[in-house]
Amino acid sequence: MAQFLLIHCPDEPGLVYKITGVLFRHNLNILRNGEFVERENSQFFMRTEFAGDFEPAVLLAELQALLPAGSSIRFSSNHPKDIVLMATKEHHCLSELLVRHAFGELNARVLAVISNYEVLGDLARRFDIPFHFIPHQDKTREAHEAEVLAALAQYRPEFVVLAKYMRILSSEFVAHYPNRLINIHHSFLPAFVGASPYAQAYERGVKIIGATAHFVNEQLDQGPIISQSVIPIDHTQSAREMAQAGRDVEKIVLARSLKLVFDEQVFVNRNKTVIFD
Amino acid sequence: MAQFLLIHCPDEPGLVYKITGVLFRHNLNILRNGEFVERENSQFFMRTEFAGDFEPAVLLAELQALLPAGSSIRFSSNHPKDIVLMATKEHHCLSELLVRHAFGELNARVLAVISNYEVLGDLARRFDIPFHFIPHQDKTREAHEAEVLAALAQYRPEFVVLAKYMRILSSEFVAHYPNRLINIHHSFLPAFVGASPYAQAYERGVKIIGATAHFVNEQLDQGPIISQSVIPIDHTQSAREMAQAGRDVEKIVLARSLKLVFDEQVFVNRNKTVIFD
Amino acid sequence: MAQFLLIHCPDEPGLVYKITGVLFRHNLNILRNGEFVERENSQFFMRTEFAGDFEPAVLLAELQALLPAGSSIRFSSNHPKDIVLMATKEHHCLSELLVRHAFGELNARVLAVISNYEVLGDLARRFDIPFHFIPHQDKTREAHEAEVLAALAQYRPEFVVLAKYMRILSSEFVAHYPNRLINIHHSFLPAFVGASPYAQAYERGVKIIGATAHFVNEQLDQGPIISQSVIPIDHTQSAREMAQAGRDVEKIVLARSLKLVFDEQVFVNRNKTVIFD
Amino acid sequence: MAQFLLIHCPDEPGLVYKITGVLFRHNLNILRNGEFVERENSQFFMRTEFAGDFEPAVLLAELQALLPAGSSIRFSSNHPKDIVLMATKEHHCLSELLVRHAFGELNARVLAVISNYEVLGDLARRFDIPFHFIPHQDKTREAHEAEVLAALAQYRPEFVVLAKYMRILSSEFVAHYPNRLINIHHSFLPAFVGASPYAQAYERGVKIIGATAHFVNEQLDQGPIISQSVIPIDHTQSAREMAQAGRDVEKIVLARSLKLVFDEQVFVNRNKTVIFD
Repeated sequence: MAQFLLIHCPDEPGLVYKITGVLFRHNLNILRNGEFVERENSQFFMRTEFAGDFEPAVLLAELQALLPAGSSIRFSSNHPKDIVLMATKEHHCLSELLVRHAFGELNARVLAVISNYEVLGDLARRFDIPFHFIPHQDKTREAHEAEVLAALAQYRPEFVVLAKYMRILSSEFVAHYPNRLINIHHSFLPAFVGASPYAQAYERGVKIIGATAHFVNEQLDQGPIISQSVIPIDHTQSAREMAQAGRDVEKIVLARSLKLVFDEQVFVNRNKTVIFD
Repeated sequence: MAQFLLIHCPDEPGLVYKITGVLFRHNLNILRNGEFVERENSQFFMRTEFAGDFEPAVLLAELQALLPAGSSIRFSSNHPKDIVLMATKEHHCLSELLVRHAFGELNARVLAVISNYEVLGDLARRFDIPFHFIPHQDKTREAHEAEVLAALAQYRPEFVVLAKYMRILSSEFVAHYPNRLINIHHSFLPAFVGASPYAQAYERGVKIIGATAHFVNEQLDQGPIISQSVIPIDHTQSAREMAQAGRDVEKIVLARSLKLVFDEQVFVNRNKTVIFD
Repeated sequence: MAQFLLIHCPDEPGLVYKITGVLFRHNLNILRNGEFVERENSQFFMRTEFAGDFEPAVLLAELQALLPAGSSIRFSSNHPKDIVLMATKEHHCLSELLVRHAFGELNARVLAVISNYEVLGDLARRFDIPFHFIPHQDKTREAHEAEVLAALAQYRPEFVVLAKYMRILSSEFVAHYPNRLINIHHSFLPAFVGASPYAQAYERGVKIIGATAHFVNEQLDQGPIISQSVIPIDHTQSAREMAQAGRDVEKIVLARSLKLVFDEQVFVNRNKTVIFD
Repeated sequence: MAQFLLIHCPDEPGLVYKITGVLFRHNLNILRNGEFVERENSQFFMRTEFAGDFEPAVLLAELQALLPAGSSIRFSSNHPKDIVLMATKEHHCLSELLVRHAFGELNARVLAVISNYEVLGDLARRFDIPFHFIPHQDKTREAHEAEVLAALAQYRPEFVVLAKYMRILSSEFVAHYPNRLINIHHSFLPAFVGASPYAQAYERGVKIIGATAHFVNEQLDQGPIISQSVIPIDHTQSAREMAQAGRDVEKIVLARSLKLVFDEQVFVNRNKTVIFD
């Protein structure tokens, strides 16, 4: 299994030399290395894949001694992440993730599916995944979210994935999973924020539509973007046909973005992402 | 030279049959035919490329008798369109169009270049195109636009192309060239309307940037879109590097859109376009 | 349900007029119309979507009387096509089709899955589709194909889809399903014909890989191409990583191509396709 | 001006640490760093952009002492490269490069244009570039190439760019500019090697066409690929229309590939490239 060293710290001269020196002295062999310096705010990011036996606490101490104050230093063994999926009525993103999961392609363990409708329960059961139907009708947003949070809590997921979950989540909800809540939005953000992006796209007469996978923060459709993709359309397509065509883009973008996150290739840098691929 | 019949009218049964019947009875041979019915507003669009000798007035009368009231019926011989190009300081769109023009690839005659800076004058002169330097400094918008309109008027252009002309035009100006003023906007509209779209894209952390060619109407960056194109970017690119990368997209999208318009492939349908390709 | 008139005949003047005239006189309303003339061989193709009640035999007779000898004239009600899927060990194309089928998105009824390995049986069963395991080991090609043909025959499929079926089929086999056997090839044909295209792509050092859906004819990977798609790659990707990345392209290209075929949007024109979309 | 350290050597543990140590001890600040290990042949590639004053000979000696035998170690100041362009009759690639050159966007000095036809002479002169018309008619290949080599020799170019030069060059010619001769091929290699790729693409009925920029080696269209790009096409396009559509792809791919090479982002690794971007 691959091992990763993940560092985010203020930039200063000699960081690569210092960090690789620690690994070298411990006889750890670097398999792949990526660095990025964000000049605007002088931030240093480094992702190192390495091989060899090591004592994490010892290396961490050595690295902390060498690196500037405020450094984030983390080891990861690239284990499959524990996740819960949330969806509403559309199946395509959920299907995509359940199929990949069933064949071990997601680097994750899908612990459960939560939905505010019952329609996707059959799909989850076909793949032997627990399905929680938590309707929102006749409930306040707070009451419904409390139920969802309770259902989530029992699984202690590392990430929660909104696979076409069509309800807006409150800031309070989002705060439970900071940088751990991932959404697929069915437009090429920041175009067509909010509801019915395909209807908006149709109205505007655009010639390309897209999809955006992003971390969710407290502002609607404003979180750090992980990945985007697009397809061409033309005047002959209705909003409904655009939505159909867009499904393929949505599910592939979401699945790839999750793979990037679960494989520890994504750093969040304020409201953006730094991605090593 | 190709000949086109271009019809836009309210939809009703039998239109294709009636129109092709007129052509058939006059021994005109259809080379390519495209129709589109926009159901929402029940609008019929048809573009027919045909061969053979004909008397336009006669055919027009026959077609008018057959088609519903409010029909737009037009013949075009696909002649090179008379155009004037406007630019500011960036050369890439202007270069692209002047090169294509020099080699007869634009289906247009570039009559002049107008700019509010002097920097692109050398480029225009290399291609033997008259260059009008009309600075805007120390002038009201009205005064400046009046000078530009006067310069344009002497050329009687069929189309005016904003090839990275970086000043906002007033509604009064736009009204002189309804559906005849074409702009390239350096973003994937409707994302990043207005100034500095690459800086906005950098701030937002998008993973794809684009460009949009559109007809100009009275609302900023809201006119009917002709064509759009995109390229992937990543976190390593500054706003300036995005702008550099975006240039290739801008110039190709603009050139292709002009070709579509000049080859009579584009209908304007309210705030959208119908394109036959 | 949509109704289609599908015509392929030698080109001559007045075809559109004559054909639409028949429809008009029978009070059939054209919803969408596409024509294409292939000039090289003077072939005319027309696909008309229309609404209204009609007597197929009557219209057929009228059309046959008007159209040149050798015309192919066909009505289709766009019914779901009966199909059988064939696969080997890789799941991604089969999963994609079974999911779409389960949610009614394929315009087809999947009658069975046939495989020369047992590994995908579990997947088929999750979607309640009969699975035929027909191993090829210790059999001649003829013997194995005879078994497969026998299994197919009981379902009388309109189309057979090779969803990553990794054995080459004999001309005799192919002849049973002329223009009704569809394959996904995991390269951007005609590059990398035959086995191990990703290994070939890695060796050659290409910067883009792709996938091709095509009708199968008697020559390996030479049949009429329905659709192709590509993704960028770079020097960091091994042949195995290219194969992983290519899966998303393969399955989407195959699914879209099937939709085009099943929705009667595809004509075969010698070794090419004419596609109305 | 940016400074680069470019290293290619057999892989072994500790290389990044050793190399960055030399830079750190000389107070050179790393601005951007890229490494790649090609596992198949255990080759290490590193490109480091750095700032600060240094004595190349001293650093080189230190690095040579630390790195394995057979290492290629090179400093580059990213100066504009001296180049000569070769073309035949088509202008689009030559125009693109001359325009970019005129506006300082190519990181190169175009010293001359050589052509076997006279038609592009006017274009070269518009940009004040010396034009050598060296016709091939009535000459043996050897005699013609000798003339071209003589013309090239007087400019001592670092790179020779074949901007749609439509004659095949002999191995003897190519040997004069190893890894310094760059060609644009008008197909998505390895599809459609050799002459008339668009005619081949039309015949095959492909749905996507492309272009490939590559270093030229002794085998036709087999040299290391720098960059490729594609565009969708359909059955309505003739070979000639494909060629027109392909021009935009060709010129952009060539221009971007040259920028990558001239900015020292490209390593040749046997018959492939390693590209740091």
